[in-house]
Order: sequence, then structure tokens, then C-alpha cells
Amino acid sequence: MIKIFDTNNPSFKQDFRTILARAKSDMYSLIPEVLSTLQDIQKRGQEAILELVKKYDKWDPESLKDLLVDRNLAEDAYKRLDSKLKISLQVAFDRIYEFHSLSKTKGFIHHDRFGNLLGMQVLPVGRAGIYVPGGKAFYPSSLLMNAIPAKVAGVKEIIMTTPTPNNQISQILLASIHLCDIQECYKVGGVGAIGMLAYGINDDNTHNNMLGDSNSDVFQKVDCISGPGNIFVAAAKKLVFGDVNIDMIAGPSEIGIIADSSGNPNYIAIDMLSQAEHDEMASALLITDDSNLAKEVAKLIDNKLKSLPRKDIASASIDNRGAIIMVNNLEQAAYLMNQIAPEHLEIITQNPYSLLPLIKAAGAIFLGHYTPEAIGDYLAGPNHTLPTGGSARFFSPLGVQHFCTNSSIISFSKNGLENLAQDCANLANQEGLEAHRLSVLSRLKT
Amino acid sequence: MIKIFDTNNPSFKQDFRTILARAKSDMYSLIPEVLSTLQDIQKRGQEAILELVKKYDKWDPESLKDLLVDRNLAEDAYKRLDSKLKISLQVAFDRIYEFHSLSKTKGFIHHDRFGNLLGMQVLPVGRAGIYVPGGKAFYPSSLLMNAIPAKVAGVKEIIMTTPTPNNQISQILLASIHLCDIQECYKVGGVGAIGMLAYGINDDNTHNNMLGDSNSDVFQKVDCISGPGNIFVAAAKKLVFGDVNIDMIAGPSEIGIIADSSGNPNYIAIDMLSQAEHDEMASALLITDDSNLAKEVAKLIDNKLKSLPRKDIASASIDNRGAIIMVNNLEQAAYLMNQIAPEHLEIITQNPYSLLPLIKAAGAIFLGHYTPEAIGDYLAGPNHTLPTGGSARFFSPLGVQHFCTNSSIISFSKNGLENLAQDCANLANQEGLEAHRLSVLSRLKT
Repeated sequence: MIKIFDTNNPSFKQDFRTILARAKSDMYSLIPEVLSTLQDIQKRGQEAILELVKKYDKWDPESLKDLLVDRNLAEDAYKRLDSKLKISLQVAFDRIYEFHSLSKTKGFIHHDRFGNLLGMQVLPVGRAGIYVPGGKAFYPSSLLMNAIPAKVAGVKEIIMTTPTPNNQISQILLASIHLCDIQECYKVGGVGAIGMLAYGINDDNTHNNMLGDSNSDVFQKVDCISGPGNIFVAAAKKLVFGDVNIDMIAGPSEIGIIADSSGNPNYIAIDMLSQAEHDEMASALLITDDSNLAKEVAKLIDNKLKSLPRKDIASASIDNRGAIIMVNNLEQAAYLMNQIAPEHLEIITQNPYSLLPLIKAAGAIFLGHYTPEAIGDYLAGPNHTLPTGGSARFFSPLGVQHFCTNSSIISFSKNGLENLAQDCANLANQEGLEAHRLSVLSRLKT
Repeated sequence: MIKIFDTNNPSFKQDFRTILARAKSDMYSLIPEVLSTLQDIQKRGQEAILELVKKYDKWDPESLKDLLVDRNLAEDAYKRLDSKLKISLQVAFDRIYEFHSLSKTKGFIHHDRFGNLLGMQVLPVGRAGIYVPGGKAFYPSSLLMNAIPAKVAGVKEIIMTTPTPNNQISQILLASIHLCDIQECYKVGGVGAIGMLAYGINDDNTHNNMLGDSNSDVFQKVDCISGPGNIFVAAAKKLVFGDVNIDMIAGPSEIGIIADSSGNPNYIAIDMLSQAEHDEMASALLITDDSNLAKEVAKLIDNKLKSLPRKDIASASIDNRGAIIMVNNLEQAAYLMNQIAPEHLEIITQNPYSLLPLIKAAGAIFLGHYTPEAIGDYLAGPNHTLPTGGSARFFSPLGVQHFCTNSSIISFSKNGLENLAQDCANLANQEGLEAHRLSVLSRLKT
């Protein structure tokens, strides 16, 4: 049974600390092990990767080529897909594509009053790596949500990796690979996949073989890695950050719901369960000012749980990481929710927009009675790869920007330089950097 | 003497690999030591921080309060500043502020054809940490370049940390703290500073003391950390990535110059030296299709070096990490430069804009004869905190976006949900997530 807490209870302060602490995980204890695997991959390359696949996925690839998914299989799987499901996948694809196109940032050009040109250009990265988890966490929607922003950004080379236990790969994943037109998918998971993406295999950093090499044993490192994964994948992403860019460090999924007496307890209970069924570690929180709603939702969760196919997972999540918090008013609800900074936030109140200005941090915000979080998981349009564990305070939903880089553009005129040279020289002089000072001043003597 | 390489030489392939390899540093060997310091800070908090200050900066603070810079001292230092320097600092401040204001991204709202609202809101992070290095790498311009984008983003709490050996802090740094209106500056550097910013001290995650606590021994963790630092700082930033957001992992500074026969060898030589005087590990590269220019620049570097106050640093950089590369044409120059993806790129050619479309990765691009890189270090406007070591391929210049988060906004109408519910349910069903399916479908039954 889900627990109900009350902010007016003297123990609440401690209760709330406990609720907040649940979101933290100790990744540092894994660092030495993950580091040593990554260093082994750096050192031994392909050999290390093949051993990791053998160890964890229980099959025996002999070369990099053996790890590549046959694109014909992907096409066949797509062709055989149930036609209704095919349409639903296409609806999702198109809506995600449209939303991400809207969020694409453009560069700009600006002329200052001295006739100097200043600007910023935005370019796609050359090569993006997408990690798609296997096992219980595999969802084809994950591939769409990672591949589409990369495509919208204009990334030419999108490389996917996924673990394939016993060299088996699901038909729906194959079909999604075809739908997303992924050119290269490697059957490797976990720390091995992150290491391979981050360092490449036999990659001498001379990109695109401009120096005339061509070798099928070469896998060129990517520029960025995105996608969810377990805590080992997360630790590996942390360690390779800087060698490549990383979308975020993700943990278990969460939902926070703010509701008042207008909330339908049935919707709220099932939305909380839709979070809980993901993972024993997922968490579902309701904050409400209506004690009847609180009790009703608790009861309904208990009832509905029993009929779910994933009831063991959902009930572990609800029991250990679920909570209902009673507050005195909705402002207090918003305040507490900001401390949590949930991955998903539903606002199910009479006037949800009036609470929006009070929300300081949440990955995705679902407003009103007809916006279940599940719609955002599949096809609302915005990305479902969202910051978890309070990191919405500083990370953003996966987006086109993760697959782009900015470059500053500076172009001074002689007159423009003349107007600013002395100020620049003063600052260089103050910092004791004589060549800096001269590089500006020498251009004025002619 | 700087070395001249030629792409037509049979050994060039190997030479170029060597040049590229210089940019790599082995940070992994430091991870165990840095990790153990961070874990100690997590465990012992304030005590560990004070010990680190005592060990590295050789003074003996007794509490967090002792670490705080007195803001009155900052104001006094600003008042005493040479008036010309004060004006130059203000020119820099205003130009950096203006440029960053132009690059601020806004959210958007979109209505789909079913009457559903989709959008993205952009909010500043609550609390930003800025690391300002001490010692030979301390430049007041670093503070401006980190603080201003945070201010433009609208960040309310900007916390600065800097090492202060023997508890001494420079007047110009104090003055810059006042100019940037930094409310809290802590005298702690290195891994200690990164740990304190990332974990806080006695921080129970209940932000803003909403639960009624007030304790002067509390330092609340920040949301993001930006700013340059040595390799230990960089390794610590890597490890805390995910606990906070991190701007980038930075290494030594670099310049790449593409020049043709129109280039003035004097300008080019001094620009290369302005990079070299930063750091023995800095690197300066010229790629040109004009062999006379190559020889002339090499000679001029040698001559000019001797008169620089930082000649020892500059000549170590030029000898070990400088290079001039002869190419057959400018397209080849652009191609090689893309493999390097330099922090700073100068294009000093007849028609620099015609090369711009060929450039795939560079932190900041300086076009034409009158745009010395030094102008970008101080007051052109764009940020001087730029991706190094080839990471311009995936990192961007520090900007307003580093101090903001996006949240997706989704608000469905009943009609809008009805139109998409079945597709969503099909996908949920395919993923075996029954509560997801029900959370959508249950809203249609009334």
C-alpha cells in the first residue's frame, strides 16, 4: 500500500528528506571496475570488445563485422510488421520529427557599431552514437526518441549499439532500425558499447580516412553518445564525458503529480502505476491538497495493481518508492515539487496553467486532465529521454541541441579593430600577455 | 625553431598522426586519486575542504565563513582600479553581455492539428558555480567570460571559487568580482572546490531552506560548474558530471591558422606566439599553401620570441607543440584543419568567407587580416571559454545555454487525445506496458 504523508505532521521534514534521498544512487563505488574495463578497451580494442560480448551476451563474434546487424534483416522485419502497428510507429515518428524541427536553433549574424561582424553558426556533429538498452528496458520508442533529433540536426552518421543476448535481436527493434534508417547497428551492450563508441577501434583520429587508409577493422569514434542504460552504462558515460559529449547521466524513471479536488482519482492512480510498471526503482509521487483524493488514489492503486501483467515490478515500486503527500495549498505543492525536480510532472488541477510559473524544474510538464504521461512516452512529440533523479534542475530533455555544436564567428574591419585595440591592449597588458598586446597593436601600424 | 611539414612528403601521414596525438592527455591515470578526494569530501564535508585548503594553499581557515571573500574588499579594489583599465574592463563587460544576449534561446509554443498544445520553456538554473583558476592561469577575463552568460541567463545565485595561496587574492580579481557583482566567492581551489560545488556542505537537498532550517555551516550544492582548470580540476569535473552539469572538459589552449599568400607573416607569427605564451602545453599551427610565407613565419617567430617576457613558456610551446604544414591548396588546408578541430581558428586569406563552408569544427573562427585571436580573448563579445583538444567536434563555446534548462510542455485536449489514443495504446501494448495503455484509454470512457 502506498504511504500518505502530511506536511503538517512533525515528522514530515525527516520523511521528505527520506523521499528525496531515494533519488540518489552511489555510482562512485562502480567507478574502479568500469574504469578498468574502459582502459582495457583503449588498450586492446577489438579483442576486448569481442570478449565482453562473449562474456555478457553469450555468443562468440570473431570480428567487428560479426557485430554488425544485417540491414536486409531490418528491412524484412519492417515489411512483416503488423500494419496497424506500422501506422502507429509512423504517427509517432512524424510527430516527434515535427516537434524537434521546431526546437532547432539557428545561428545568427550581428554587426556592431564599428562595422565588425560577430556571429554564431550551428552545425551538426559528424557522427553520433545511440545506445539502446536490451532486456527489460528495451523499447523501440527509445530508438525513435534518440535517432530523430540526430536526424533533425542533420547528423550524417548515426551509429547504434544494443546488447543482443545469445545473438538474438527482436523483430520490432529490427523494424525500428529500418524505420529510422540507421545505417550501422552494432550488437554490443554495456560498458563495451560505450567504450567502443567513445574511443573507436584502431581509430588514429584521422577522420574519414582522408589520409588514404581503408581498413575494415577500423571503427571510428563518435562525437556524442546518447540513450538510456543501466548504472554501469551511466558510470561509463560519466567517465568518457570529455572524450565525447554525453546527453545526460540517467537513473530510474519518476513521475510527480500535483492534483487538486478536480482531479479524477482513476486517472491519477493509473498514471502513477504507468510509471511504477517500468522498474522496481521507478517512483511515483502525488502531491495534493485534497485528503479525500489522497485516500481514494491510494485505494485505487491497490486495486488496479492486481490486474497488471507487471504487477510484481509495479508493486515493489509503489511500496518502496511511491508516496502521496498532503499539503495545505497548491503553492506548497509546487514548492515541494521543485525540490524533487521530477522527470515527468503532471499538473491535474482546475487551472493547471496558473501553477506553471511556480515550477522551476521538471523534465516534461503534462498539463490538465487529458494529458497522461504515457502520451509523452510515445507520440506527443517532445522527447521522452528526460533528466531523472532531480537532474531536471540542470539537464534538459534530449534534443536537437545535443547533436549540434556552435562555433563563434568573429570578423573585424580595420576601422573596427582601431576602435577597440587600445582597450584590448590594456587588458592584455594587465594580464602580462605581451604577444597578445602586440598581435592587436601591430595590425594598426601601416 | 618551429618545424615545417609538407603533405607531399611520404612521412607526412605519420607526422600528422603525431601532431594530432599531442592533443590527447591521459586523464584516467588521475581518476583513482581524484575519486578518493571527492569521496572524502562527500563523507567529511567542511572538514575535508578546510584540510585541502591548508594543504594546497598553505593557510588555515577554521570554517566555511573564513573561506568567503569580503565583498567590501572587492568594492574597494574596484574603486582603486586604474581608470583606463576600468574603462577597458567595462567595454569588455558590455560587449560580452551584448553578444550573449543575442544568443539567448527562447522557448516556443506550438498547436498541433488536433488542438493539442506542445512547447518548450527555457529557465535559468537556480545556482551556478564558476571556477576561476589561480596561479599562472589566472586571468580576470576568465571571470567575465563565465559570469556574464550566467547573468544573461538570469541565474539568481552565482557562486565563484578560486584558490588563494597563502590566503592572498589579487586586486584585479577582487575588482572583477565587484564588476561582475558576484555575491559569494569562496577561497578554495582544485578538486576541493569542485567537490564543494557539486555536493554542497551539510546540504540535505531541501533547497532554499523551505523546511525552515538555517545554518551557517550549510553550503548548498550548485546546479552547474563552468570554468577552466588544470588536469585535476578537469578530472574532478568529469567525475561530478551527472551530480551537476559541466560546461566541458578543457585542456591546453590551441590556435590553428589557415593562410595564403595574402597573409601578413608578421601578424601570423605574433598570433601564433600569443597562443604559445599561455602555456608550455599550448599549441600553434599554421597551414598554408605558400612556402615563402611558411619560411617567413618560421623566421619571424624565432626573432620575436626573444623579446617576449614569457619567452621560456612560448619557446617550449613552439618547439614541442608548434607546427607549420605546407599544403597544395586551401581545400586541403580546411580538410586537415577539420581533423584538428582547433579551439581557435584564424582564416587569413584573400577571401576567408569562401572557406567558411568547408570548416566542420572549431571553437571560434576569426576571419580576415584584422581579426587577431587576442581580440576574442578579451572583448570581441563571443566567449573565450572554448572546446580544446579536438573537442570542438562535439562541445560548444560556453554560452547562455549552459546556464539554462529546457522543459517540455504538453497539454492535450479531450479531442486531441481521442485522435491519438489508439496509436499510443498500440505502441504501449507492443512494449507490454499495460498501465501505459490504460492510462490513455481510461480517459476516453466517460
